[in-house]
Amino acid sequence: MLSTLRGSSRAFSRVSVRRAVEIQQRRAIHNTRCRPAANIAVDSVSSQEPFFPNEPTRPSVKTEIPGPKSQVAIKELDEVFDTRSLNMICDYEHSLGNYVSDHDHNLLLDVYAQIASIPLGYNNPALAKVASSPEMVTALIDRPALGNFPPASWTQTLKSGILSVAPKGLNQVFTGMSGSDANECAYKAAFMFHRRRERGEGAPFTEEELSTAMNNQKPGSPDLAILSFRKGFHGRLFGSLSTTRSKPIHKIDIPSFNWPQARFPQLKYPLEENVEANKKEESECLADVERLITSWHCPVSAVVIEPIQSEGGDFHASPEFFRGLRELTLKHNVLLIVDEVQTGVGATGKFWAHDHWNLQSPPDIVTFSKKAQTAGYYFGNPLLRPNMAYRQFNTWMGDPARVLIFNTIIKEVERLGLVEHTAQTGAYLFNGLEQLSKKFPGEIQNLRGKNTGTFIAWDSPQRDAFLKKMKTVGVNIGGCGESAVRLRPMLVFQRHHADILLESIEKVLKA
Amino acid sequence: MLSTLRGSSRAFSRVSVRRAVEIQQRRAIHNTRCRPAANIAVDSVSSQEPFFPNEPTRPSVKTEIPGPKSQVAIKELDEVFDTRSLNMICDYEHSLGNYVSDHDHNLLLDVYAQIASIPLGYNNPALAKVASSPEMVTALIDRPALGNFPPASWTQTLKSGILSVAPKGLNQVFTGMSGSDANECAYKAAFMFHRRRERGEGAPFTEEELSTAMNNQKPGSPDLAILSFRKGFHGRLFGSLSTTRSKPIHKIDIPSFNWPQARFPQLKYPLEENVEANKKEESECLADVERLITSWHCPVSAVVIEPIQSEGGDFHASPEFFRGLRELTLKHNVLLIVDEVQTGVGATGKFWAHDHWNLQSPPDIVTFSKKAQTAGYYFGNPLLRPNMAYRQFNTWMGDPARVLIFNTIIKEVERLGLVEHTAQTGAYLFNGLEQLSKKFPGEIQNLRGKNTGTFIAWDSPQRDAFLKKMKTVGVNIGGCGESAVRLRPMLVFQRHHADILLESIEKVLKA
Repeated sequence: MLSTLRGSSRAFSRVSVRRAVEIQQRRAIHNTRCRPAANIAVDSVSSQEPFFPNEPTRPSVKTEIPGPKSQVAIKELDEVFDTRSLNMICDYEHSLGNYVSDHDHNLLLDVYAQIASIPLGYNNPALAKVASSPEMVTALIDRPALGNFPPASWTQTLKSGILSVAPKGLNQVFTGMSGSDANECAYKAAFMFHRRRERGEGAPFTEEELSTAMNNQKPGSPDLAILSFRKGFHGRLFGSLSTTRSKPIHKIDIPSFNWPQARFPQLKYPLEENVEANKKEESECLADVERLITSWHCPVSAVVIEPIQSEGGDFHASPEFFRGLRELTLKHNVLLIVDEVQTGVGATGKFWAHDHWNLQSPPDIVTFSKKAQTAGYYFGNPLLRPNMAYRQFNTWMGDPARVLIFNTIIKEVERLGLVEHTAQTGAYLFNGLEQLSKKFPGEIQNLRGKNTGTFIAWDSPQRDAFLKKMKTVGVNIGGCGESAVRLRPMLVFQRHHADILLESIEKVLKA
Repeated sequence: MLSTLRGSSRAFSRVSVRRAVEIQQRRAIHNTRCRPAANIAVDSVSSQEPFFPNEPTRPSVKTEIPGPKSQVAIKELDEVFDTRSLNMICDYEHSLGNYVSDHDHNLLLDVYAQIASIPLGYNNPALAKVASSPEMVTALIDRPALGNFPPASWTQTLKSGILSVAPKGLNQVFTGMSGSDANECAYKAAFMFHRRRERGEGAPFTEEELSTAMNNQKPGSPDLAILSFRKGFHGRLFGSLSTTRSKPIHKIDIPSFNWPQARFPQLKYPLEENVEANKKEESECLADVERLITSWHCPVSAVVIEPIQSEGGDFHASPEFFRGLRELTLKHNVLLIVDEVQTGVGATGKFWAHDHWNLQSPPDIVTFSKKAQTAGYYFGNPLLRPNMAYRQFNTWMGDPARVLIFNTIIKEVERLGLVEHTAQTGAYLFNGLEQLSKKFPGEIQNLRGKNTGTFIAWDSPQRDAFLKKMKTVGVNIGGCGESAVRLRPMLVFQRHHADILLESIEKVLKA
């Protein structure tokens, strides 16, 4: 096995990434031609054919991490850029598929994927192709102020890409730059909608509103709130941070709005053995939401929630809970904003995680970023377009270069059936983890994510040490919350990767 | 002239943009070789040789704007994207240099430049080259979470580019996505610094701080303020919008922080004839700042100011005013944040507009975006790096693809001497406008920007009608504030463009 490892690793590092990408592209085209996705069972494809034929077959760790070259590089970088949150200095030219290379050319299986933001693997050939296209050059060098001077192609760009995967019931999009940006613009839309409804359609702003708004005073700058949940994470700018409740280190010393936080269900695992307790917990949390909506010192314009609370610790709730929340928000005329920044684009085994809920009435707004490589929010109600121009506006309103990337991601996800693939790989991986949790019940606690694709997590009593040890066996893996290990593999993560991951976890837990 | 116009326009539309870019690139390389910038007087270059040899020689307006094709396209776009702020549907493949093409192939001299954000002209060959480079492909398809997994090249990318133009006295950068993002992260840095100083170096957070922060309550989430100025514009997310005081439409219905706004000098023009009155005005405004800093309901952590208030109406103040402001902030231990989002990167005839001030002590933080095509903030004091990791952090912390673009912009600005060039072109343009203002004193009022490059504005009693008419004669021009016409040409704007602009203004004012 060692020879395979070395052989593969050498073969990979011998070809330049350009060359590898060329080879990949030809194969990709060839593969598309000789096996249209529809004719091949996704499962057999995923278990047998690697998406990246040149991908390393195993991790390869040759030095400590950080190794000698990385240590020098970190020191240099620290002179001009804060490196205290640095995890690894990477060599992206030497990374491929699910494998990330560090600066010392250690090759790690990457199940963290740039904090859950790489969907199709490093140096994906389809992305390389669009990145080298004339359309991309134009998008990069003639960056438009999209609200003022959109290109004629913008309609088609939106319709054929971003909007082709709009959540059910939503058909409009406002494009942005990052998850925080998307959420804050969604909050602004909610506040403008709230006042529009209160004011009555067609009613003008009063003189008092216009003048007080300029002084940041009521009534022009009203006291309105967004309700979020304990342990929720929605970004780190001032509005989004006011709804973020993940950790003190994210919030301390930063002024914030006096907005309410409701309890988020703390479910007990395994779910099958805690049905009644969990049902009670969720019903109490819904009661908490209703109490806050009806008693807060100011009106609540919207509720924002992640389908799975990610940064805060990978906490799940049941579809029933979310359906109850939707009913509550409808009952009290409060908008429901679903923050799919981390959960969106396939990783949960549905394109949007809220597809798991079977809602009767869609969320009012769905925000996205991360694996989309761009950002924005979807909506359906035309009244969520503010009543006048320039109320929801900024210079760039997103980046068409990144939108082209997202559109290609969408095409590849569809061409390769990556959502269904991830659902299946996730089930396989979860099963393996369940076995491991029986072997190491003290080390793998509260295993969660049974039917949510590869979006899986568990609690680990010595989480940070575990994450560190995983690097020594060649796996880059992330944590969240106080004690959770969170898996965030890419959508091109396959069974053979899951096998390596499971072996590696076992190896570390045994040691 | 008509034949020249047609000929040029036809010749331009006959070659594809790819081909034009190729030709440009070869010429650019040739030009660099046979005339090193240092050996040629910039002025003679700028007045004689066009930066874009294939650029149209005149605007060409063949239809109404929007023309028939644009009208159809706008209707289609409006189904999925708010078009009420739309100015023109553009065809960037047919745009070149200072000329923007609309969807009906009307070619307009563009002195608005995507709300002041295009520095080097449309389809600039140097940018096309970097946009097609292997480094760009990697940056686009292997997008790193820069705070966790930076590439080894990141140090060099920062040092050779962004940091090579760091404002005097500042040597660190935090990269971001947009102007709003840059400003909000700067505010966060200021708040963390404020509390660090109050708390004392090395002092830990208290239990009370940690727990109250999670509830958005004091003392963990403190009452601290950023002071901004009337008519200032600093972005439209919740923190930045709380410091924005441009127009009610930007602010109404959005909750905001109770932060103070000081008076910004309203200077009288021409400056030479109003020396005493303006001096008094500026001194009163400084007194207003001091009054607010010392009397606001909560401590003021930082003052944020634009060197020239742009969105709010293009208001200038003297270097003395800004030096006074720096002294005041030092006296009261308040940080000075200079928002160079619109003024930075050369347009004022200095790389940073605050270079005009000759400060003894540099600003604490300088934010940038727009013409940089990326965003972030510079700082120098190492204590502005928060005392712990992950306090100033987000998933992407900017976009390396856009940083590569900025780095190339910097190189081109230096290679072609575009800052000095813009200072000279600006002086030429200002002189022409001064002549026109004497001819049309009612139409060109309060002409301002004498020594600030092409960053020039005036008040127009029928501003919106004027802007519209300018389109009919082939000029795309922007407004700001209540009544200002703002010029924001690119850095490749030359004397012959200035001549066309002046002629066009005269033509419209005569009609």
